[in-house]
Amino acid sequence: MSSILTTEGVPLYVKIREGIRSDILQGRLQPGQKIPSEEELAEQYRVSRMTVRQGILDLIKEGLLHRKRGVGTFVSYPHFDRDHTRLTNFFESAREQGIEASSVVLKIEILAAPEKVAKHLRLEPGGSVICIRTLRYVNHTPVTVHDSYLPHRLFAGIIHEELENVHLWDVMEKYGFQVKRALQKLEAKPAAGEIAKLLGVKPGYPILYKERTVFSTDGTPVEFTYCYNRGDMYSLTVAMER
Amino acid sequence: MSSILTTEGVPLYVKIREGIRSDILQGRLQPGQKIPSEEELAEQYRVSRMTVRQGILDLIKEGLLHRKRGVGTFVSYPHFDRDHTRLTNFFESAREQGIEASSVVLKIEILAAPEKVAKHLRLEPGGSVICIRTLRYVNHTPVTVHDSYLPHRLFAGIIHEELENVHLWDVMEKYGFQVKRALQKLEAKPAAGEIAKLLGVKPGYPILYKERTVFSTDGTPVEFTYCYNRGDMYSLTVAMER
Repeated sequence: MSSILTTEGVPLYVKIREGIRSDILQGRLQPGQKIPSEEELAEQYRVSRMTVRQGILDLIKEGLLHRKRGVGTFVSYPHFDRDHTRLTNFFESAREQGIEASSVVLKIEILAAPEKVAKHLRLEPGGSVICIRTLRYVNHTPVTVHDSYLPHRLFAGIIHEELENVHLWDVMEKYGFQVKRALQKLEAKPAAGEIAKLLGVKPGYPILYKERTVFSTDGTPVEFTYCYNRGDMYSLTVAMER
Repeated sequence: MSSILTTEGVPLYVKIREGIRSDILQGRLQPGQKIPSEEELAEQYRVSRMTVRQGILDLIKEGLLHRKRGVGTFVSYPHFDRDHTRLTNFFESAREQGIEASSVVLKIEILAAPEKVAKHLRLEPGGSVICIRTLRYVNHTPVTVHDSYLPHRLFAGIIHEELENVHLWDVMEKYGFQVKRALQKLEAKPAAGEIAKLLGVKPGYPILYKERTVFSTDGTPVEFTYCYNRGDMYSLTVAMER
């Protein structure tokens, strides 16, 4: 199909496509939101409906938009497929896929390790741990509640560090521990209470739940996490050998 | 606590515990079912309620039974934690955990490979595949719907083989392919339609969903599967390195 070019030599439909894309990535259009009609967009960009349609079609193929017959075109919830064939951190993985990732710290506590946490971190019962709850976003939509437990005696100073939009593993390196290996248990669970609220889903909604122990290069268990991922927005690929 | 012994020298509460355990493992007591009251069991085994309670308490600790306050004691749904730190098959994994595992074949079809299946099996579009749907049971409760696609030209004869209660990988070896490696994508999804019916759960119930490509020792993709696991009955542990 021959395309009408803008004054910068870019096909017009590409300009529209990229305009809508930037509205989505910068949060001006939210997941689940209906985008303006073809007529409205044609008027806004001063192009034909045909040109608008071509731009939208590209974004539907990419999975950024989807159509509901007779209702309109909607912004899709972003889907983050994490490659765990090797151990990567959340921000690394997102960057590789061109996904906008961010995190906020919801709380930091120092407490006596619950039984299960103590066991996985090989601490004496009731040993002191730092618990950090973060909420992780993909393209401005909350996708993961992340409860991280660290042995207090190894990372006492960490509570004074900047922990937003950085990965804990990068901060942990300052304390002399480099992450090497993880054991991860996966389940599908119904969302409940606080977790459902934070992820913006109804109670009972499927959550990809992970329990993970992370080991440093010298074999020390340095982190235990409970991780609640929104089922429709998150998948995970692993490799296994016999 | 001193225990009353049976004539064979086994404590009485152990006899009761193992009696209930065998009722569960052999399906005489079903998951979700209420077990007889302490009074009834005491009468049945001709022991004190105290002794019955001790046997039941052991099974609650093990997770085979659970109490609902003011209602009674119930058989728990079995939970199968699959160790996927290495690639194991369903029956191997179950055996290692002392879990009773079985499978029935629901259908076998020869069809033109759907696009995604063809891509993962590296077949020409519409190439011929064998699709085998099995339902897998853990302690007589359905836990997994397993849709397996095999390239027809590699495994044409397999449709005449005995496929119930055996693992497909063992049968595939007869055709000269030994399973070596798998790539597995994991998601939490709501149960729908036929899958919900087969697993005995309500639509929307959390399912641990897997898409898996299996490779033989020479790198040939020999199997692609869609796998639907009941969320409350199944978890999976993987190991990862940086």
